[in-house]
Amino acid sequence: MNRFELTILGCGSATPTNKRNASAQLLNVAERFFLIDCGEGTQIQLRKFKCNFRKLDRILISHLHGDHYFGLIGLLQSFHLLGRKKKLTIYAPAPLKDVIELQNKVSETYLNYHIEYVDLDPKKATLIFEDEKVEVSSFPLDHRIDCTGFLFREKKLPRNIIKEKLLKKNISVAEIHKLKLGFDALDEDGNPVKNSELTTDPPTPRSYAYCSDTRYNERIIEFINGVDLLYHESTFLNDMQERAVKTRHSTAQEAATIAKKAAVKKLLLGHFSSRYEDETEFLKEAVPVFENTLLASEGVIFSV
Amino acid sequence: MNRFELTILGCGSATPTNKRNASAQLLNVAERFFLIDCGEGTQIQLRKFKCNFRKLDRILISHLHGDHYFGLIGLLQSFHLLGRKKKLTIYAPAPLKDVIELQNKVSETYLNYHIEYVDLDPKKATLIFEDEKVEVSSFPLDHRIDCTGFLFREKKLPRNIIKEKLLKKNISVAEIHKLKLGFDALDEDGNPVKNSELTTDPPTPRSYAYCSDTRYNERIIEFINGVDLLYHESTFLNDMQERAVKTRHSTAQEAATIAKKAAVKKLLLGHFSSRYEDETEFLKEAVPVFENTLLASEGVIFSV
Repeated sequence: MNRFELTILGCGSATPTNKRNASAQLLNVAERFFLIDCGEGTQIQLRKFKCNFRKLDRILISHLHGDHYFGLIGLLQSFHLLGRKKKLTIYAPAPLKDVIELQNKVSETYLNYHIEYVDLDPKKATLIFEDEKVEVSSFPLDHRIDCTGFLFREKKLPRNIIKEKLLKKNISVAEIHKLKLGFDALDEDGNPVKNSELTTDPPTPRSYAYCSDTRYNERIIEFINGVDLLYHESTFLNDMQERAVKTRHSTAQEAATIAKKAAVKKLLLGHFSSRYEDETEFLKEAVPVFENTLLASEGVIFSV
Repeated sequence: MNRFELTILGCGSATPTNKRNASAQLLNVAERFFLIDCGEGTQIQLRKFKCNFRKLDRILISHLHGDHYFGLIGLLQSFHLLGRKKKLTIYAPAPLKDVIELQNKVSETYLNYHIEYVDLDPKKATLIFEDEKVEVSSFPLDHRIDCTGFLFREKKLPRNIIKEKLLKKNISVAEIHKLKLGFDALDEDGNPVKNSELTTDPPTPRSYAYCSDTRYNERIIEFINGVDLLYHESTFLNDMQERAVKTRHSTAQEAATIAKKAAVKKLLLGHFSSRYEDETEFLKEAVPVFENTLLASEGVIFSV
């Protein structure tokens, strides 16, 4: 089975502390590497956790609050200094391009690789990347400024051929292709071969959804329904419910409620406010609502 | 005696690594705190070394290469989030203001404190700050883009009055003031009092000069002549002399030659290229030229 792994690089909110870095995650879906958000210090975290800079071809920025992107310009210039030549694609709110280009201009830096900027639509769900193994969409969240979540979904795989049984038959490559797609086939003598006789179901495609930052909002549910792993921000505990409403963030209990209503398999909490020292408090408030809840922790790899 | 202390927050160059952060130093001159350069991650280093954010009223940025200022926007927004109200002064190349304001604009951040921007003159030495205890000047360095060094100098203190001897005389406050300034005085009966009889020399004013980044250039010597502590960049060793010329940086030996020709008291090397693991190599090449050479090291406090 292909890898589908999430590495947490930063799970703090607003101001970085000695304990928690600003938001950033590295996602590996079948050896496609996506950097999701890029708070200050992300390049140092990437080095710390031995993530290969060269494998990174796509960076997604959910919104333009600094704790989600202030580390980007440093990473882009480090790519340059390290000799990168291949194209990089950045999916981000439209104004990001101006911010990056102004900083390159004032330092007289002319990158020796090309950046393609893909503007995110903050209003509706949009397919932003697709290849034979994976598709990625953005969808609107509910924050103080335009902010999008991201959904990563494996493509449906062809059916598994049972090799031992196939070897006993005389079947052409073209007919095998039909079997993989789920159809019945014919052997070289023209005899019918039932699909169910020669194939088994492929693994169910897996999916990961990233929701940060956002106010509790049930309109998000349709975009993340049934995902295997949901990362949902959980900046506050119940004691700061009013502040969550005011700053358009969520509490642990609200994140758990979204997870439950969206019938996801696992919930991962992060974006913890620096006012909380002990993260287990977030679990205490989330688990009674949604049992399969985990805490983001820097350097930890979660398998989807 | 007043404090005159330099804390190294980052002493790496170009790309931050796990071992060395990008350039930043905190200087305390008589409880005036100056942040000198502010590479990515500086706010995390300030926390790590328990430097008080609230005492920081002046930030100096030598030039607009990212490893000297990419941490600034994050620090400014953290000041805001932590409730800062008092004015901050930033001494920097003129385009910095646009970079900061654009990033505040796209995040819809309206700082609750005022920033005064003072544009540095990259062409000539300029007094940029002065109060009763200290004066700060900028002066031109020789780099790929406009870059200035900084000179911090204690003000000359009044002469020390020898209290035991003063008590035996009958001298008015106005006449004591004259003694402090180095003049002779008169006692209340009109008798002359020799200055040398009642005073001793004050401590010699101390000075610190910061030179980063720069090519070896003897025109710098006049600005830093005789300082107590000189920080001079030393990006490369002799093996990379050609690259030093090309990138407008200096070698350890060149930094030592400047220190010697400027007759400074101590030399502090930093801005080490990440290609070098072992910093003692820098000492080996500098000490034969200038013996009193030290290596910058993060978290270490140097007394001027």
